[in-house]
Amino acid sequence: MRLTFQKADLLNGINIVMKAVPSKTNLPILECILIDARSDQIKFTANDMELGIETVVEGEILEKGMIALDAKIFSDISRKFSDSTVMIETDSSFTANISCEKTNYKIPGKDGEDFVKMPAVEENAQIEISQYSLKEIIKQTIFSISTGEANKLMTGELFEISGNMLKVVSLDGYRISIRNMELKASCPAQRVVVPGKTLSEISKILTGETEDMVQISFSENHIIFRFDETKVVSRLIDGEYYKIEQMLSGDYESKVLANRAEFLTCIDSAMPLIRESDRVPVILHIKDSEMVLQNESAIGSMKAEMPIDKTGKDITIGFNPKFLMDALRVIDDETVSLYFVNAKAPCFIRDDEGKYIYLILPVNINV
Amino acid sequence: MRLTFQKADLLNGINIVMKAVPSKTNLPILECILIDARSDQIKFTANDMELGIETVVEGEILEKGMIALDAKIFSDISRKFSDSTVMIETDSSFTANISCEKTNYKIPGKDGEDFVKMPAVEENAQIEISQYSLKEIIKQTIFSISTGEANKLMTGELFEISGNMLKVVSLDGYRISIRNMELKASCPAQRVVVPGKTLSEISKILTGETEDMVQISFSENHIIFRFDETKVVSRLIDGEYYKIEQMLSGDYESKVLANRAEFLTCIDSAMPLIRESDRVPVILHIKDSEMVLQNESAIGSMKAEMPIDKTGKDITIGFNPKFLMDALRVIDDETVSLYFVNAKAPCFIRDDEGKYIYLILPVNINV
Repeated sequence: MRLTFQKADLLNGINIVMKAVPSKTNLPILECILIDARSDQIKFTANDMELGIETVVEGEILEKGMIALDAKIFSDISRKFSDSTVMIETDSSFTANISCEKTNYKIPGKDGEDFVKMPAVEENAQIEISQYSLKEIIKQTIFSISTGEANKLMTGELFEISGNMLKVVSLDGYRISIRNMELKASCPAQRVVVPGKTLSEISKILTGETEDMVQISFSENHIIFRFDETKVVSRLIDGEYYKIEQMLSGDYESKVLANRAEFLTCIDSAMPLIRESDRVPVILHIKDSEMVLQNESAIGSMKAEMPIDKTGKDITIGFNPKFLMDALRVIDDETVSLYFVNAKAPCFIRDDEGKYIYLILPVNINV
Repeated sequence: MRLTFQKADLLNGINIVMKAVPSKTNLPILECILIDARSDQIKFTANDMELGIETVVEGEILEKGMIALDAKIFSDISRKFSDSTVMIETDSSFTANISCEKTNYKIPGKDGEDFVKMPAVEENAQIEISQYSLKEIIKQTIFSISTGEANKLMTGELFEISGNMLKVVSLDGYRISIRNMELKASCPAQRVVVPGKTLSEISKILTGETEDMVQISFSENHIIFRFDETKVVSRLIDGEYYKIEQMLSGDYESKVLANRAEFLTCIDSAMPLIRESDRVPVILHIKDSEMVLQNESAIGSMKAEMPIDKTGKDITIGFNPKFLMDALRVIDDETVSLYFVNAKAPCFIRDDEGKYIYLILPVNINV
């Protein structure tokens, strides 16, 4: 095999597939990037068995062939080159010669035939959204997945399609994040749970441009994302996702309108007094047209005030400040609406158009 | 005590003295910043017993007094405030009320009388250099101090003054870095060893401007730096520093002129093949008008070429690539001169004006 690339193209290709290289594995071949130039395209592939990424890299094929190269070393080397033409040559013993201008590396590779292929899946439905929208919807929900492995379903996000609506849901037992998005076209109903890791890795390689599109298709056990010259195939998480509809009540006793940025700043003020280990709530005293945020820990106490617009009853309620901040950070609206029932019932932050709902359980406080 | 500050002034003062707050200590009072407003100035002080920093902070004294506040909490809180006026009030039980606009913190403080005072030292000589020069000279030498505690003297840098020349030296047993600087005025001879930690902390708070000056004075056991509104007092390291003059020979068999940036890039190319744990040298093959850099490890091999201007014998010599790069990174010249005797003798990188000398021991290679 003999290939040439412009350094920027090579590095871009490596950076994309690197997201699917496992940091730890018992199968050394998975630590490699497969370079497949047996046809008239150069394809880079990485695959950690859950998530596979394949991308077509611009370059010239001087001699067809295939090789698997240790991803980290290949990436480190490519980064060192100047912005010029890089040549990769391999011989029958799978040794790779990688050179650029007057610098030359020789590293051992592996037979590409030993690489674990991406699963071939039968795709049965497809939607299209912009890279911007997919990146946003991931950012707006990914923070409330569970990172513990105790409950596998909670480590993923529900992608539910019905008609021309896409709903994305994540929950961790303390809060639920829901985002709804209208699609350009209707699609057969889908209800799948996508691993959080897949979503966070994919959002790193999306351009985030509104004009660039992503095709998302589904198979029985996989979800497939196609964008630019890249294809991402991820296993789905097995199991029936939570019925969240029954947790979403429209009733409330108090409704509060608050400036989002100011609310965020007030909650953030409590952070210097909170050590990771102790779970000290921030307490909201909502009374007439004012909200007093208060926090007391072993370190000291904090009190902050801000004006609000309240309808309904006064209420005093405590929250994990991080949960409130996570939701407030990803909402774009200048003013947010909070809905409360009582100090033991979940609070809802939601807009009138139904684009988002954030449900947060309160912390028990003795008042 | 009752003081007001603009948030930016407060934070600036905290950031300066924070450099002397120990990360670990058996004496809890040292984790504090002392705020002393008993006279008509507000002074912040921190002191880890080796290094003490005192700075005058702009602010208004509404009621005189003194308090010691936990540095980390005080700093975290101050960072959260908006750009506005911050008020600090304390009561007789050393509780501090810190407020800014509608946010208010209450944290316990300590009696300022318990704070460990900065040592009062008798100063016997003084030089003045610009903040820029001090910051540069530290950057140009600090990398070759030893971090191990086995040899205390190697963890510091020699500051030697004779006539109107300042010489700064660091060494770690494998290399020596020497910088010489002309002073505006002569000063009585000095030869002291300043802790590396003092120098690295001080360089973080120097503005680095050529117009801002630093006064450096000496006492028997201390060095004192004065700049802006800040005074830094550091203990010196006891003991007789190494006689380096006898290690500096002017003889050589080969002299090489090389483009500094290109040389740096070539050595850096070897890094992807070097794991922290194994000490693989980079080998320089200097022959006629070319230098070939070569490196071979368990991961693979690398070869890079660059043109040079050589006088004297050809030579093949091996180095720890990091040592060469550390020196090359802090030299400003476009072209560097390297002097070699043989493959077992130290290499010198030095300029003709005697502003810098970097001595680097080679690694034994079998050629």
